[in-house]
Amino acid sequence: MEPTNSFVDEALLKRVPRWSKYLEAKLGFRNHWYPVLLSRDIAEAQVVPATVCGEEILLKRIDGTVRAIRDRCLHRGVKFSEKVECYTENTITCWYHGFTYKWESGKLCDILAAPDSKAIGRRGVKSYPVQEAKGLVFVFVGDDDVEVPPLSQDVPPTFLDEDLSVHAAIYDVESNWRVGAENGFDGLHVYIHRSSELVPNTQRSLPIGHLSDSAKVEIFEEEGAPKGVYDLFANHVSVWEGKVEGKTVITGTKRVSDKPTRTTAASIWLPCVLRVDNFPDQEITQFEWYVPVSADKHLYVMTVGKRVSSEKERADFEHEFWSRWKPVGFENFNAQDIGARVALQKYYKNDNSWLDEMLIEGDAPIIKWRELCHKHARGVQKPEHM
Amino acid sequence: MEPTNSFVDEALLKRVPRWSKYLEAKLGFRNHWYPVLLSRDIAEAQVVPATVCGEEILLKRIDGTVRAIRDRCLHRGVKFSEKVECYTENTITCWYHGFTYKWESGKLCDILAAPDSKAIGRRGVKSYPVQEAKGLVFVFVGDDDVEVPPLSQDVPPTFLDEDLSVHAAIYDVESNWRVGAENGFDGLHVYIHRSSELVPNTQRSLPIGHLSDSAKVEIFEEEGAPKGVYDLFANHVSVWEGKVEGKTVITGTKRVSDKPTRTTAASIWLPCVLRVDNFPDQEITQFEWYVPVSADKHLYVMTVGKRVSSEKERADFEHEFWSRWKPVGFENFNAQDIGARVALQKYYKNDNSWLDEMLIEGDAPIIKWRELCHKHARGVQKPEHM
Amino acid sequence: MEPTNSFVDEALLKRVPRWSKYLEAKLGFRNHWYPVLLSRDIAEAQVVPATVCGEEILLKRIDGTVRAIRDRCLHRGVKFSEKVECYTENTITCWYHGFTYKWESGKLCDILAAPDSKAIGRRGVKSYPVQEAKGLVFVFVGDDDVEVPPLSQDVPPTFLDEDLSVHAAIYDVESNWRVGAENGFDGLHVYIHRSSELVPNTQRSLPIGHLSDSAKVEIFEEEGAPKGVYDLFANHVSVWEGKVEGKTVITGTKRVSDKPTRTTAASIWLPCVLRVDNFPDQEITQFEWYVPVSADKHLYVMTVGKRVSSEKERADFEHEFWSRWKPVGFENFNAQDIGARVALQKYYKNDNSWLDEMLIEGDAPIIKWRELCHKHARGVQKPEHM
Repeated sequence: MEPTNSFVDEALLKRVPRWSKYLEAKLGFRNHWYPVLLSRDIAEAQVVPATVCGEEILLKRIDGTVRAIRDRCLHRGVKFSEKVECYTENTITCWYHGFTYKWESGKLCDILAAPDSKAIGRRGVKSYPVQEAKGLVFVFVGDDDVEVPPLSQDVPPTFLDEDLSVHAAIYDVESNWRVGAENGFDGLHVYIHRSSELVPNTQRSLPIGHLSDSAKVEIFEEEGAPKGVYDLFANHVSVWEGKVEGKTVITGTKRVSDKPTRTTAASIWLPCVLRVDNFPDQEITQFEWYVPVSADKHLYVMTVGKRVSSEKERADFEHEFWSRWKPVGFENFNAQDIGARVALQKYYKNDNSWLDEMLIEGDAPIIKWRELCHKHARGVQKPEHM
Repeated sequence: MEPTNSFVDEALLKRVPRWSKYLEAKLGFRNHWYPVLLSRDIAEAQVVPATVCGEEILLKRIDGTVRAIRDRCLHRGVKFSEKVECYTENTITCWYHGFTYKWESGKLCDILAAPDSKAIGRRGVKSYPVQEAKGLVFVFVGDDDVEVPPLSQDVPPTFLDEDLSVHAAIYDVESNWRVGAENGFDGLHVYIHRSSELVPNTQRSLPIGHLSDSAKVEIFEEEGAPKGVYDLFANHVSVWEGKVEGKTVITGTKRVSDKPTRTTAASIWLPCVLRVDNFPDQEITQFEWYVPVSADKHLYVMTVGKRVSSEKERADFEHEFWSRWKPVGFENFNAQDIGARVALQKYYKNDNSWLDEMLIEGDAPIIKWRELCHKHARGVQKPEHM
Repeated sequence: MEPTNSFVDEALLKRVPRWSKYLEAKLGFRNHWYPVLLSRDIAEAQVVPATVCGEEILLKRIDGTVRAIRDRCLHRGVKFSEKVECYTENTITCWYHGFTYKWESGKLCDILAAPDSKAIGRRGVKSYPVQEAKGLVFVFVGDDDVEVPPLSQDVPPTFLDEDLSVHAAIYDVESNWRVGAENGFDGLHVYIHRSSELVPNTQRSLPIGHLSDSAKVEIFEEEGAPKGVYDLFANHVSVWEGKVEGKTVITGTKRVSDKPTRTTAASIWLPCVLRVDNFPDQEITQFEWYVPVSADKHLYVMTVGKRVSSEKERADFEHEFWSRWKPVGFENFNAQDIGARVALQKYYKNDNSWLDEMLIEGDAPIIKWRELCHKHARGVQKPEHM
C-alpha cells in the first residue's frame, strides 16, 4: 500500500505555499471536465475504454448519447473491458460472474450467476457525467456529491461558439500533463520551432523567443467563468536573433507583409487547456488539452477552430485540416513539443525537480498559471481516487 | 532495504482480524508441503531449479531419491544453478570458489579453492525435506526447528489413496496464489465456463451459477488431518438461466440423462489445494495446487485422479488423460480460469483491494477459507525468509 | 522523493562501524578521479556523454583539451545531449530555450531566446576537472569547494610512469562497482579461470586457489599518496588440486620452467582500481577500474601496461595488445569475471546481503579494502548529488 501522505512529500509541498496543490496534482485536478475521446471514434453501440486522472472508465454510445462508467466490477475488481458483454442496449455485464450494471446510472441491476443477491438494486459503479461538444467527448471526473458545473466553465472562451468549426486529433504522450501544459504556455520555447515546416508553409513570422511582460499578463478568475492566464503577445518583446558572445548564430523568420503574420496570444485554462490565438494561421485558433492519464502519461488532445459562415467555408476548413493543419501543424510543429515534453519528463518525474528548476523572468506567466491552479482548481486527484 | 513491517500495511491487517494472516500471506504459508515439479521432469542425476514461496531451491535425483537445497552459496550468495558443478554424485560445488555441499544435508564438506577453511564441516545451506507421491515432487518449506508433518496432512483426503491413478501437468500463472485459490473454489465463477469445449465433450450439465448454502459448508479442522472447507453442490441452488431485467440472455447446459451429469463438490485445503469431485467427468477427481512462487506468480499444478482396479483401467485412464483431460480440461476449461486470475491480479496486487472488494452471499465459502487459513496455517512466509 | 536517509538503512550501517561508508557507497566515493572514456574516443570538437557516480556529464575536446560539464540545463533540467547545439567552439547551447554555457567554466553566458535575463553571467552548470593520462580521460567528481588532489593520488603506483606504455578498452557491466572490485581483488576466485584460454596462450601456471596470509597484507595509507591494500602472492599458499571428500576432482595448471610463470601480486586502490602485477604475462601489469555508473552498473575500464625503452618495443606491445591481451585477456579471461559479477549482483543488490554473506579466512584482504575505503575515501556519493 502506498500511504496517502507519501504521494508527494509534505516537506516539498510546504516549500511552495502559493502553488502546493499544483505540485501535488500529478494526476490532475478533480471535479473538472476532460476530453477523453473524439466523437467520431465512438459509434452507436460501440464500447471504448479510456483512462483519465488515473481512473479507468468505459464509454458506450447509446441512442446517440455517450455514457461512461467506472471500468471495474464492484464484486472482485476485474475490468469489464477485458471481455465486453452487453446483453441489452442499456446494460453491461461483467464477464466474470454476470454482475450487470446500467450504463446510465451505474446501478447494479442483475447478477446472472446469483440472481437473488441482496446487492442487486442497492449498489452501483461510479457513473460519470458526459457531454459532447465540437467533436470531443468530455467526461466530468469528480466526487459524487459535487454539483457538476457547466462544461463552458472548463473550456477556454470562444471554444463553444456556435460559428466555430473545430477539428481534432488525439495523441498519447509519455510525460506528466503539467510538463505538457507548461511547455505549451511557455513563450520562450518558440526557440525549438524555428525549423518547423509550418513556418514556410504559412508564410508567417516566427521569432526565436518572445518575452512576456509579467505585469501585463491577465488573470481570468471571475466566478462562474473559465479560469485562466492570458498572455497577449503585443505586450511581448520579440527576439529575432540569437547571439552567442555578441555574434548572431541563429535567426527567426521575420516576414514583411501588409497582412498580420503573427500569433497574437497564448492563454491557459483550468483544468489543462491552452488556447493559441491566430495559430497555426491567421483567423485560426488552436485549443489543446493535456489530459492527465497517469503520473507519466497524458493525452494530447489537439484541436483547431475557425469561424465559418457558410457550408462552403466549413468544407474548405475541413479539407484544410486534413491536408495542412494535421500533418504540418499537429504532426510537425507540435511533434517538436512532444519531443520537448518527453525530455522534460526525465527531470520533472522527480518531485524534487519542481523546487530545483531555475525559472527566469520570461517564465513569470508559468508561475501565474501554477498559482491560478492552486487557487481555483476544484480538487486534487489523489491515489485513493483510483 | 524493505523493512519487514511494510510487507503488508499493519493498518490493513487490523481491519480483518479474522483473516489477517491470509492477507499477509502474499508469499504463502510456511511449514507446509508444496508440489514443485513433476517426478517425470527430474531424471536420475538431473539438477532442476524451482522457486516456492519466494525461496529459490535446487533439486537433484540421486539413486532415485530427490534431494533439495537452497540455491544460494553461503559464501557470497551466488546461485549454484548459474553453472552447475557436481563432481560427485552426492555433492554440488559452487562454480565461484568451489564451496561444496552435500545434497542430503546441505552441509559444507569442502572448499576447493580454500581446503583448510574452518568453515568446512561447520556450516551448511538449508536442505529441504522432499517427498514424491502420485507423480509429484513435494518440498516442505519450513523452519529448521519445526517437526515435519506427514505429507498426508497437507493434501486433500483421497489424493494419496493407493488405487487412485493420478496424472498431472504444471503451468506458470502470472497472479498471486490466493487469486488462483479463490477463483477455483468460487461457486459462481462457473459463469465463465459456459462456452467451454469440455461441456459438449463430456455430455454433462453445467449451470451458469450455483449458490452455496453457507450454513451447510463443512469445515475440516481435526487435529492431525488435512484442514479444509468442503462445499457439497447438493446443497446449492443452481442457476440455469441468466436474466437481465427479467429477460433471459444466456443459458447453462442442462442434460436429461439417467446417469449423473454434475460435478458434486468443491473443497479447498491448506496450504493451497482444491479438490473437485466428479470433475472433469464422473468418477474423476481433479486436485489442483496454486503454489506460491512470488507475490505475483504461482505454479498451477493440475492433476486428475481416478480409481483403477486393473492394469487395463490404469492404461485406459492414462490414454484418456493425454487425449481428453489435458487438452480439453486443463488447456481449455482451466485456461479460462487462468485468464480470470490474470485479470483479478491487476486489482488484487494492491493490498487495499482485499478490503475494497464487494463479496456477496455466494462468496461465503471463500471467507470461510480465509478464516481457516488464518486459524490453521503453520506460519506466514515473509520477505526475511527469502 | 526518495528521502536521503533511506539510501541505505541506518540500522544496517550501524552493524558495520568499521566499513559503513563502504556499505553506503552504492554510487561510489565523492571527491575522487575516475576514468570515464578512452582518449581515442573523443576527437577534436566531438561531444560525448558519460555517467559517473550517477552524475550525467557531457565532455567535449576543444583545442586538444577535454572539458566536462553537467549534462543538465539549469533552467528546466533537460539534457543538452538530447540534441547537441554548439554554435561556437567554446560554448554549448541548450536546444530548448537557447541557454548557452561555457565549456571551460560552466558559466551561463547567453540565453538566445531571452538575451536580457539577469541570470546571464551569474549562474552556471557544474564543470568538472578533467585530466588525460595514458589514453584515459579522467574526471574529478567532487564538491566545488574541495581542493582537487593530483591524479597521481587516485591511481595505483607506477601507472603514470613515463616509460609505461598503456593500452585500454572499456566495457559496461551490469553490477554494482563494489561487486566488481571485490571479485577482482579476491585471491580465491582464480577458481573460475582454470579453463581460460589465457593459460595455454601464455604457457603460465594458474592454481585453483591461493590463500592470503592476512597478517602480511600491506596497507598503503601515507598522506598525499595513493591509498591501497597490497597482497603479495609470495605470501600465499597456492592450491593446485581441488578435492571433494578427499578425491581430486579438478587441478590447476602448474608449469615447470626456468623462468617465472606466476602473477606476483594484486593490490586495490581508492577510488576503485585494481593492479595485478605480472599479469596477463610476465612484465605486464594490468590496471583495471570499476567506475560507478548507477547502483547496478559500472564501467569496466581495463588497461595493460608495459615498460618500453624504444619505439620498436612500444610498437610490439601495441600489436600484442590487439592480438593477444584484448581478445585473450580482456575478452576471455576477464569476461569470466564479468559473468561472476552479474551473478553476484543478484545477491548484493539487496543491502541486507552485505551483512548476510559468509566470508572466510581467504577473504581477509577484502575486509581490509572495505575498511581502507571507510577510513580514506574523501566522501560518499549520495542521491542528492545526482
